[in-house]
Amino acid sequence: MFFHHGELAYTVRVDKPNPVFARMLQQAIGGPEGELRVMTQYLFQGFAYRGPSKYRDMLLSTATEEIGHVEVLATAVCMNLEGAKSEVVDQVATNPMIAARMGGIDPRHFLSTGGGATPADANGVPFSAGYVDAGGNLRADMRANVAAEAIGRTLACRLYEATDDPGMKDMWRFLIARDTMHQQQWLAVLEELEDPANAPGDFENEGEFANVAYGFFNHTTNEPPADAAWTSGPSLDGKGTFHVVDPRSMSAARPELQPAPHDMHRGPEATMPHEQDGNGGSSPGALAQLREMLKA
Amino acid sequence: MFFHHGELAYTVRVDKPNPVFARMLQQAIGGPEGELRVMTQYLFQGFAYRGPSKYRDMLLSTATEEIGHVEVLATAVCMNLEGAKSEVVDQVATNPMIAARMGGIDPRHFLSTGGGATPADANGVPFSAGYVDAGGNLRADMRANVAAEAIGRTLACRLYEATDDPGMKDMWRFLIARDTMHQQQWLAVLEELEDPANAPGDFENEGEFANVAYGFFNHTTNEPPADAAWTSGPSLDGKGTFHVVDPRSMSAARPELQPAPHDMHRGPEATMPHEQDGNGGSSPGALAQLREMLKA
Amino acid sequence: MFFHHGELAYTVRVDKPNPVFARMLQQAIGGPEGELRVMTQYLFQGFAYRGPSKYRDMLLSTATEEIGHVEVLATAVCMNLEGAKSEVVDQVATNPMIAARMGGIDPRHFLSTGGGATPADANGVPFSAGYVDAGGNLRADMRANVAAEAIGRTLACRLYEATDDPGMKDMWRFLIARDTMHQQQWLAVLEELEDPANAPGDFENEGEFANVAYGFFNHTTNEPPADAAWTSGPSLDGKGTFHVVDPRSMSAARPELQPAPHDMHRGPEATMPHEQDGNGGSSPGALAQLREMLKA
Amino acid sequence: MFFHHGELAYTVRVDKPNPVFARMLQQAIGGPEGELRVMTQYLFQGFAYRGPSKYRDMLLSTATEEIGHVEVLATAVCMNLEGAKSEVVDQVATNPMIAARMGGIDPRHFLSTGGGATPADANGVPFSAGYVDAGGNLRADMRANVAAEAIGRTLACRLYEATDDPGMKDMWRFLIARDTMHQQQWLAVLEELEDPANAPGDFENEGEFANVAYGFFNHTTNEPPADAAWTSGPSLDGKGTFHVVDPRSMSAARPELQPAPHDMHRGPEATMPHEQDGNGGSSPGALAQLREMLKA
Amino acid sequence: MFFHHGELAYTVRVDKPNPVFARMLQQAIGGPEGELRVMTQYLFQGFAYRGPSKYRDMLLSTATEEIGHVEVLATAVCMNLEGAKSEVVDQVATNPMIAARMGGIDPRHFLSTGGGATPADANGVPFSAGYVDAGGNLRADMRANVAAEAIGRTLACRLYEATDDPGMKDMWRFLIARDTMHQQQWLAVLEELEDPANAPGDFENEGEFANVAYGFFNHTTNEPPADAAWTSGPSLDGKGTFHVVDPRSMSAARPELQPAPHDMHRGPEATMPHEQDGNGGSSPGALAQLREMLKA
Amino acid sequence: MFFHHGELAYTVRVDKPNPVFARMLQQAIGGPEGELRVMTQYLFQGFAYRGPSKYRDMLLSTATEEIGHVEVLATAVCMNLEGAKSEVVDQVATNPMIAARMGGIDPRHFLSTGGGATPADANGVPFSAGYVDAGGNLRADMRANVAAEAIGRTLACRLYEATDDPGMKDMWRFLIARDTMHQQQWLAVLEELEDPANAPGDFENEGEFANVAYGFFNHTTNEPPADAAWTSGPSLDGKGTFHVVDPRSMSAARPELQPAPHDMHRGPEATMPHEQDGNGGSSPGALAQLREMLKA
Repeated sequence: MFFHHGELAYTVRVDKPNPVFARMLQQAIGGPEGELRVMTQYLFQGFAYRGPSKYRDMLLSTATEEIGHVEVLATAVCMNLEGAKSEVVDQVATNPMIAARMGGIDPRHFLSTGGGATPADANGVPFSAGYVDAGGNLRADMRANVAAEAIGRTLACRLYEATDDPGMKDMWRFLIARDTMHQQQWLAVLEELEDPANAPGDFENEGEFANVAYGFFNHTTNEPPADAAWTSGPSLDGKGTFHVVDPRSMSAARPELQPAPHDMHRGPEATMPHEQDGNGGSSPGALAQLREMLKA
Repeated sequence: MFFHHGELAYTVRVDKPNPVFARMLQQAIGGPEGELRVMTQYLFQGFAYRGPSKYRDMLLSTATEEIGHVEVLATAVCMNLEGAKSEVVDQVATNPMIAARMGGIDPRHFLSTGGGATPADANGVPFSAGYVDAGGNLRADMRANVAAEAIGRTLACRLYEATDDPGMKDMWRFLIARDTMHQQQWLAVLEELEDPANAPGDFENEGEFANVAYGFFNHTTNEPPADAAWTSGPSLDGKGTFHVVDPRSMSAARPELQPAPHDMHRGPEATMPHEQDGNGGSSPGALAQLREMLKA
Repeated sequence: MFFHHGELAYTVRVDKPNPVFARMLQQAIGGPEGELRVMTQYLFQGFAYRGPSKYRDMLLSTATEEIGHVEVLATAVCMNLEGAKSEVVDQVATNPMIAARMGGIDPRHFLSTGGGATPADANGVPFSAGYVDAGGNLRADMRANVAAEAIGRTLACRLYEATDDPGMKDMWRFLIARDTMHQQQWLAVLEELEDPANAPGDFENEGEFANVAYGFFNHTTNEPPADAAWTSGPSLDGKGTFHVVDPRSMSAARPELQPAPHDMHRGPEATMPHEQDGNGGSSPGALAQLREMLKA
Repeated sequence: MFFHHGELAYTVRVDKPNPVFARMLQQAIGGPEGELRVMTQYLFQGFAYRGPSKYRDMLLSTATEEIGHVEVLATAVCMNLEGAKSEVVDQVATNPMIAARMGGIDPRHFLSTGGGATPADANGVPFSAGYVDAGGNLRADMRANVAAEAIGRTLACRLYEATDDPGMKDMWRFLIARDTMHQQQWLAVLEELEDPANAPGDFENEGEFANVAYGFFNHTTNEPPADAAWTSGPSLDGKGTFHVVDPRSMSAARPELQPAPHDMHRGPEATMPHEQDGNGGSSPGALAQLREMLKA
Repeated sequence: MFFHHGELAYTVRVDKPNPVFARMLQQAIGGPEGELRVMTQYLFQGFAYRGPSKYRDMLLSTATEEIGHVEVLATAVCMNLEGAKSEVVDQVATNPMIAARMGGIDPRHFLSTGGGATPADANGVPFSAGYVDAGGNLRADMRANVAAEAIGRTLACRLYEATDDPGMKDMWRFLIARDTMHQQQWLAVLEELEDPANAPGDFENEGEFANVAYGFFNHTTNEPPADAAWTSGPSLDGKGTFHVVDPRSMSAARPELQPAPHDMHRGPEATMPHEQDGNGGSSPGALAQLREMLKA
Repeated sequence: MFFHHGELAYTVRVDKPNPVFARMLQQAIGGPEGELRVMTQYLFQGFAYRGPSKYRDMLLSTATEEIGHVEVLATAVCMNLEGAKSEVVDQVATNPMIAARMGGIDPRHFLSTGGGATPADANGVPFSAGYVDAGGNLRADMRANVAAEAIGRTLACRLYEATDDPGMKDMWRFLIARDTMHQQQWLAVLEELEDPANAPGDFENEGEFANVAYGFFNHTTNEPPADAAWTSGPSLDGKGTFHVVDPRSMSAARPELQPAPHDMHRGPEATMPHEQDGNGGSSPGALAQLREMLKA
C-alpha cells in the first residue's frame, strides 16, 4: 500500500521556462532510460520477490522513490511549458530565434495535455512496459537494475549539460546524485551475492560445455587480440580460462526441413505430395489437427 | 558487411516435435530476454562505437554470433512444428492429452507462417527495438549487456528445464554455455573499465550532492536494517559512505502551477482570466504561439 | 456493409498551405484523441452489440460518420502539404522564419507518403487499436464514448485556436459542432439508462462492501476536505453516503510468498531446498509441469 | 513524494492456486481496463493539474490507492502460481483435466518471471501508456476517469464470476466496491462541474454551427427512429434541439489535389510536369525545401 | 463520406459455435495479414491519391468493401462465442476434450468484450497502423496491395482448412474469392503501369550504378547457381543483365568515427580531450548546441 | 551462421555533417520502409523455408546483405552527428538559420545515444517486427518482398533528393541500385513461379465463387468505368473475366446476436433473462465455463 506526501521529493524551480527543454525532459520520464521504466521494473521485481524480506523492502522502497521522481520531472515539464506570455507570442512572429525554437517542441504538450507532461519519451513514443527487465532471479534482476541506472544516469548527465537554467541544473544534480546511489546500491547487493558470478548461479556448464562457456567465438574475418581481457586469462567466475574459438569448429549441417502438409498451402516447392500427408487418403493434414480439436 | 555460412552455429535436433515447445522457444527469439534483442543491442552499440577498435570489433563479433543464434532457434521452432502426421491428427480427436496440448500452441505458427518461427515472443507479441538498451557510454552499455545476458541465461535455463527432448536439451546446454561466456566477456570489459564504478565516470557529485549520492532514502514506513550492505560502510566506488536518509529532509513545497492561457481550454478552474492572458486584449494566448509561427 | 459517397462530409479548404499544421492535424487522425480511435471504438462496439437494434444502428451510423471525418482530415493534411512552390524553396534558404518552420514538420509527410497523411499521431506514432475502449456493457461503453468525444473536442478546440487559416478554422468549427452532438448523443443514451448509475448495473455491493463502496480512501498525508462532494452527502447512485476512510483500517499483512521450486532458477534466496520441491527425490518441480504436459 | 506501507491494501488469500486464473488476473493489471492504466492516468492528470488544490489532491490520493491495487493483484498472481507441488506434476501427465488447464497459462509466468506477475495483459501484451486518456481539461478528464472505472468494474465483475476460490472472490468484492466508489467520486466532481455539459465548456457553437451541433447525421440506409432520445427533444446541455440530418446536405465536392513536385517520385499519374514544379528550370521541388534547409 | 447498409456483405452462419475458432478468426481481423490492415492501407492510399480519379475511386471502393469484411468477421467472432449453454458448462468439468478447448480461447473474448470481437490478432496483439504500407508512389502502392492480398489469401485458405463448420467454410469461400479478385485487380493496375518495372519509375541507375543494379551480391560462403533466374539473363525491366558479384569488390574501409565532445559523457575511450572540443576553453561542446538554442 | 567483415558494404562519406539529415536517415533504418524490416523479413522467410535450397540460399544471402546496409546507414547517421564544433555552437546562438535546423533534429541522437543511430524511424518510433510480412507461401512472400523493395526504393529516392551532400548522394545512388536489383530479383522468382498468378496457387474458386472471384464490387455511389482494366476483359490469371457487381446482390440479413448469459454483465439490453441462461437454476452461465475449467 502506498501513501502520497504533499511535498515534492526535491525543489523544482524553472528560472526561464522553455518548451524545448520540456520536450527533452520527457525522455527521462517515458523513455527506455526513464523513471517510468525503473519505477515499473522495481515495483514488479518487488511484488514478485520470494525470499527474506530485506531485498524486497529495499526494492519497494526505491521503487517508491522513483514514483516521486516521475512527479518531480512531470512538474518540471509543466513549469517549462509556462510563460506563454503575450510578449513572447509577439516575438514569435518577428524573432526568428524564437520561431526556430518552436520547431523543437512536442506539439502534444500544447494540443493533447494543455500544458502538461505525457507518459511518453522525447519523441512522443508512449512508455511501454516491454522496456522492463525482470527475470525472477535476484542476481539477474540486480544486474538489470545497475544497467538501468547506468543508462539513466548517462541520460541525466546529458540533460544537465543541455540546460543553462539554474533551477533545472540544480534539480539534475540532485537526480544524478540519486542515480549514483541507486547504481551503488544494486552493486552492493551484487557484491553480497558474490559477484562477478553468472546468473543464474545454479546451473553448471558440464562436460564439453565447460569449455564452450569460456571461448570467445570469433565471428569476424580478422584475428582478435590474443591478450584481450576476454581472450586470455582466467574467467571472472574463476571457473574457466578465456580462449579464442573458431565458431566453424562447432557448426553443424543445416537439417533439411520437411515439406509441409498439403493444407498449409505453402506453395508447390514446400508442400509434400498430397498422398503423403494423408490428405489424399482418408486422414487430414496439419491444420486438420486444429480442426479436429475444434470438433472435439 | 556480413556473410552467411551455410551451416548452423550448432546442431539442432528435435527428437519429438512439439508445437507447445515451439511456442515457448519464441520467448528466446523475440522476447525482451531474447536473441533479437541482444543482436540488435550489440549491433547498434557497435555501429555507434567511437574509440579504439578493440571494443567495437568484439561487440560486432558477438552481435554476429547472436544472429546465428536466432537462426538456430528459428530452425528449432520449425522442427518442433513438424510431424503433423495423420496418426497424430486422429489422436487429437480421441486422446484428451493430445487435445489438451493444442490449447498451448501459438495459432500463428499454423495460420500465419505455415510452420515457421515468427519474430515475436511466446505470446505472439512482436519484437520491439524499444527493448534495446544502448546509451552511448561504454560502461553503461557493458552493464546493459551483462544484464541482458543474465536475464537471457535465466530464460535459457528454464527452457532447458521445460523439455525432456534430448536434442533440445543438448541445444540449450550449448546456448547456456554461450550465455555464460557472454556474461563473462562483458564483465571482463567492465573490470578493465575499473568496475564497480558509476556510469558515466566523468560526472562528479559535488558539494551537498556528494552526500546525497550515498544515502539510502527510506520510502517505507518501517526502519531499514542499519547494517545492510547499502545502509552502512563505504560505497563500492570508494567515494562515500552508505547511510540512511529520511527523504522528507530533502523535500520541497510543490510549486503552484500557473493557470493556463485562455486558448488552452483547460476548464475554468485551470484557466487564467481572459484579460490576464492577453486574449481579452490585443495579444494572443498560448496556442497563439503556434499560430504565429505558422503565419511566419 | 458500407458504401462510399464521392463528396466529402464537409468543405475542406486550405487558404495557405502549412506543413507544420499538417503535422498537428495528424493528432486528430491517429492520436488517442483522434478519429481513428472513435471510428474503431464505435465500429467494434456496434459489431458486438447484443440487444434491441436501436442502439446498434446509432453506434454504426456514427462510426460511419467518423470514417468520413478521417477522410476530411486526411484531405486537409494533403492540402496543407501542397504549395511547395519554387519561390518558397528559395525563401527557405534565405528567410529564417521559413526555415524555422521546417523544424516542425513531420519528415514522413515528405519521405514516406510523398505528400499524404499517415495513420499516426502528430509525433508519428502509429495508431494502435489498444487505445479503443469497448467493454461489452452498454453503460460502460457509453461512458467511454462520452469520454472519447470530450477529449477529442478539447483537442479540436486547440487545433482551431492554433490556426488563422480561414478554411481550416471553418472546418474545425464544423468538426467541433459534430463533437458536441456526439457528446450529447451518448449522454442522451446514458440518461435513458438511468444515469448516474454504476456500470455494470447488475452487481451489488453487499455486506461490509456496501460501506467500502462509498468511502474516500485517503492516501495522502494531509486531511481531505470534510465537505467535498466526494467525502460527504449521499452518493450519486443513491445507494450510500460518501465518507472518509483511513485505508490502513482495511489493510492486511503481506502474505509470505513461498520459495519457488528448484527448476525455476530464482537464486538461492528465493528457491526452496532441493528435496522440498521434489527435485531431490523422484518428482519434478515447477517447469516440470510444462515438461510433463509436453510429453503427454 | 510517495511512501510505501508494508501491509497490503486488502487481504490476498488464494485457497487453491490456479495458474490459469493468474493469467486472467493479468488483464486487470496491464490491460486497457487495468490498474496500471488508471494509476498512470490519475498520476499524470494530477501532476499536470492547474487550479485550486482540492481536485489535484483527490486525483493524486486515488492514483496512489491504485498503485496499491497493482500490488494486491500482482501478489494474487504470485500466489496463484504457487503450489506446483510434485503431486500436481504427476497428475499433469495422467489427468487430462489438469493437462488441459496448462494450455491456458501464460508461459511467461514460468519462463520470464519464474512465478511472478508481468506488467502486461492476459495475452501478454505489455502495458502501453498510450492507453491513458488525459486531455488537460478537468471535465474531459473526469469523463475519462468515469469511463475507465466503468470498464474496469465490468472486467472486475467478470473476474469475480470466473473464479470459485473464496479468497479470490473476497478480494474481487473489495476491488469492485472500490471501483464503485471511484465511479461515484468522478461523477460527483462532474456534478460539481455542472454536468451534463460539454467539454470543453468555453467553446460555443455559433451561427449555422449551433444547429449542426444537435443534429443526428444519419449515415445508414434506414430511417432512424424519430422519437429516440437523440433524434428529438431538447439536448442535455439545454442549448439545442435534437433532430435528424441527412449528411449529404452538408457535403462538399472533393477538392482536386495537386500533382506533386517532381522530386517526390509519386509516379507519372501524380506528378506535375517537370517544368511546372520548377525542376526543369533553375528552381527545386518539394524535397528541395528540406535540402535547402539542410544547407542553410 | 461513407454510408452504412443494414445488411452484411455476405451470409454469416455458424452451425456450431466454437470459441477457439473465434480466436483464430481474430488473425484475419487485426493481424498484419488482416482486414483492418488492408482497409487502412487502401483508405490512406486513396485519401492521399493525386492524379486522375479512376485509381482513387477504385482504391476507396475496395477500401470500403474491406470495412464490410471487418464487419462480417467480427460478426462471425460474436457468433462463435455464443452457445455457452448450461449443458456445455457441465461438460467442461467432466469432459476433458471440452476442457482442453478452453485452453485455446482468447480470455479477452470473455473478460474484456463480454462476447465480442476485438481489434486485435489471434494472440490479442492490438492492430497497429504501423503494419500499413503506403509509399505515395502508385506502382509501389499497388505492389504493396498485391502483397497484402497474397498474404491475406494464404491466411484465409488456412482458416478455411481449420474449420469443419459448414457456415464458416461457406463464408471463407466467399472471402477467398474476394481476395482473388483483389489480387487480380491490383495486378491489372500494375500491368497498365507497365509491369514488371521498378518503383519509382523515374529514377535511373546511371554510370557504374547501372551495373550494380543488376548484380546478385553473393553474401554466402557457397557459390550461387550460375544459371538461376536472378544470376543470368536479361533483367525483367529490360535494362540490364543479371550477374553474380562478390560484394567485397565494392566494400570500403570503415571510416574512423570521431571521439565525441566532452559533454556527451561517452566514456574516456570515446570522448575527445577536453581542450579539443572547446569545453576546456570558453566554447561549449555538443549538447551545448541544444543549450544555446534553448537560450536563444 | 554469420560472419562479420571489417569493411563496410560501400563507402560512407559525409562531406558536411548535418544532424537533420541524420534524423531523416533513420526512416531508412527503422521505418516500415527500412532496412531492419527487409533484413528481418528475409531472415525469417529464409529460416522457415521448406523446399529446394536455391530459394532459401538466395533469401539468406540477400538478408545478410541487408544487415550490412543497416551498418552503412547507421554509420552515416553517426557521421552526420559529428562536427559539433565550437564555432557551430557559437553560431547557434547568433545565426537563426542554424538555430532553425536544431528544431528538426532527433533529440535522442544527443540524449540517448550520445551521437549514434537508434533502431527507430525518423520520428523516433522503435522498429517493430510487426512490420514484417512473411506468410509461409513462396509466391506470397515474393510479392511481399517486391513490395518492400518498391516502397523502400521510393524512400531511398526521396532521401537522395533531400540532400546536396556529395558523399551522401553517392551512398544513396549505390543503395538505390541495390534496391533495383532486389526488386528485379524477387520479380525473377515470381516469373519462375508463373506470375501473375494468385497466392496461394493451390486453392481454386469453385461453383458460384468462380464468378465472385473476378467481379469488381462497386462500393461507391458513382458508376465505375465499364472498360477499366479491372472491370472488363480476361483476368490476369486467365481463369475468369472481370465484371462489375453490385455488392447488394450478395448481401445477407444481419443475424440477430443472442443476448449474453447473465454472468457476462453486459447490461439489461444485452443479457438474457436469468432463468434462460441457467443462472437462475442450478447451472452456470458463460464465464462459468472458465470457472469450471479452473476447478477441474
